[in-house]
Amino acid sequence: MHILYKSVAERGRQWAEIIARRYPHARFWQWPEVPDPAAVEYLVAWEASAELIAGLPNLKALFSVGAGADQFDYAALPPSLPVVRMVEPGIVNGMVEYVTFAVLGLHRDMPLYLQQQRERRWQGHPLVPASQRRVGVMGLGELGRAVLMQLQTLGFACRGWSRTPKSLPGAVCFAGDEQRAAFLADTDILVCLLPLTPATHGILNAQLFGQLPTGAALVQVGRGAQLNHDDLLTALDNGRLRGAVVDVVDPEPLPPAHPFWSHPALWLTPHIASQTQADSAVSALMDNIARFERGEPMVGVIDRQRGY
Amino acid sequence: MHILYKSVAERGRQWAEIIARRYPHARFWQWPEVPDPAAVEYLVAWEASAELIAGLPNLKALFSVGAGADQFDYAALPPSLPVVRMVEPGIVNGMVEYVTFAVLGLHRDMPLYLQQQRERRWQGHPLVPASQRRVGVMGLGELGRAVLMQLQTLGFACRGWSRTPKSLPGAVCFAGDEQRAAFLADTDILVCLLPLTPATHGILNAQLFGQLPTGAALVQVGRGAQLNHDDLLTALDNGRLRGAVVDVVDPEPLPPAHPFWSHPALWLTPHIASQTQADSAVSALMDNIARFERGEPMVGVIDRQRGY
Repeated sequence: MHILYKSVAERGRQWAEIIARRYPHARFWQWPEVPDPAAVEYLVAWEASAELIAGLPNLKALFSVGAGADQFDYAALPPSLPVVRMVEPGIVNGMVEYVTFAVLGLHRDMPLYLQQQRERRWQGHPLVPASQRRVGVMGLGELGRAVLMQLQTLGFACRGWSRTPKSLPGAVCFAGDEQRAAFLADTDILVCLLPLTPATHGILNAQLFGQLPTGAALVQVGRGAQLNHDDLLTALDNGRLRGAVVDVVDPEPLPPAHPFWSHPALWLTPHIASQTQADSAVSALMDNIARFERGEPMVGVIDRQRGY
Repeated sequence: MHILYKSVAERGRQWAEIIARRYPHARFWQWPEVPDPAAVEYLVAWEASAELIAGLPNLKALFSVGAGADQFDYAALPPSLPVVRMVEPGIVNGMVEYVTFAVLGLHRDMPLYLQQQRERRWQGHPLVPASQRRVGVMGLGELGRAVLMQLQTLGFACRGWSRTPKSLPGAVCFAGDEQRAAFLADTDILVCLLPLTPATHGILNAQLFGQLPTGAALVQVGRGAQLNHDDLLTALDNGRLRGAVVDVVDPEPLPPAHPFWSHPALWLTPHIASQTQADSAVSALMDNIARFERGEPMVGVIDRQRGY
């Protein structure tokens, strides 16, 4: 079995070490070192150009190193090549931590308290019980479901929205375009965990913000191109939204002059909400390859029609 | 049954409304309106002067409106007067939320990321799995135990320390002075939820910080007088500690010139970690009074010897 890795070099060295130790029969090459391109069966990458793919005549599957696979140019990939996103517990845990932090911070007015700290102002504000705070998650894949399970343990009133109907214990679930307005009207803190598709491009815009209750808040951990930056700034400035925690933007890195850096009601982090963890990611990859070689379906295969 | 309330007036009005609705047989007076001091049997207060107590000849018990009762001057109280701290789920939930937020924030380097935001710097840092992060809670009363149960659901490696030996499912428990150093050496994020007693006055000092691993972090939600402010600043500046979230200080409010307001590695909030919730607090109070009147022990009675 020959695997080629092309992503952050430092993480690749961790993968190489883990594979050498736990899967001694596998060959693991780290791009640009490719002793025999014709031998490469599996490519693990964040980006994969048409040239790279064309140079690997016996490639059997392309694996994204991240939870999404929207970064690939599908027009440049052979139509029959399976593309697989990373489904592994390390990514899930990191996302649950980040979203729990962000939701609790917005729930407890922490952007306001930290702003007061900068102003040297000692002033408390009323505390709303979690049971009276409605948290709505858009996107009910592995990440969205895990996030909602965790938020339930804190007593939040949980809601979920997805393209197709889903059910989740302890959360009120909405689905499709026709239930989107009802979901948004019922959400005080909105968490976006949608995949990037043509249908979700620019979805976080003035129209959507206008459907949330006045004074709602946003956690954006989907993909940068889903968020209209100007609309978010307007909503924060006119009080439609009272706060936002944003981990993904477009472009990344955000240019130094961008107003997100300095808005007092917006917390910006540099796309760090979650990250593939080498140990569990290698297990997930090798399990998927084993499934493929046994002729079984892999976990996380992209449906190119649907876009995720 | 005659109850006198002396604390924040706005919250008192909530208590009055709840008691009138749910306990129509009870009389609830809000200080300074005391039509008949001799009729007052139960006093609910944050502060109670010797003069106030002396003017209530038939007082049977004093209830703190807060989770602690260290604010009373016990030398000025009749030795036989039961003093009761507030044990109610509203306070517990608020504290669990705040500490979970603070621990996740320190775990995920959020003080550093928000500092980077102010500096317009886009830079990620390595992510440590929760399973490799040891969170140690000092003080294993209702609050400390509830906090540890919640932190376990996030996968942290949980430890607890208390004066007398306790056991808690899923957490390694240490007790007494002789196990304190071992507990501290095994703690990456320290949460202080100790009551204020002569033994805990000034306990968060240079000596204690020196027993934590280098680069540890602190969440202070006990009482202000437990923390040596200068020692914390020194520990943050010399890298012994990498961050702190502080909700209680001495004095409160913190004077505007104090260095805590502007330290980049310190998040300061104005004693808002938790708060009695009127609805559940009234239930807890009335249940305790009913126990007392049946001759049963009340929940949360202060042991004046022990100090909490």
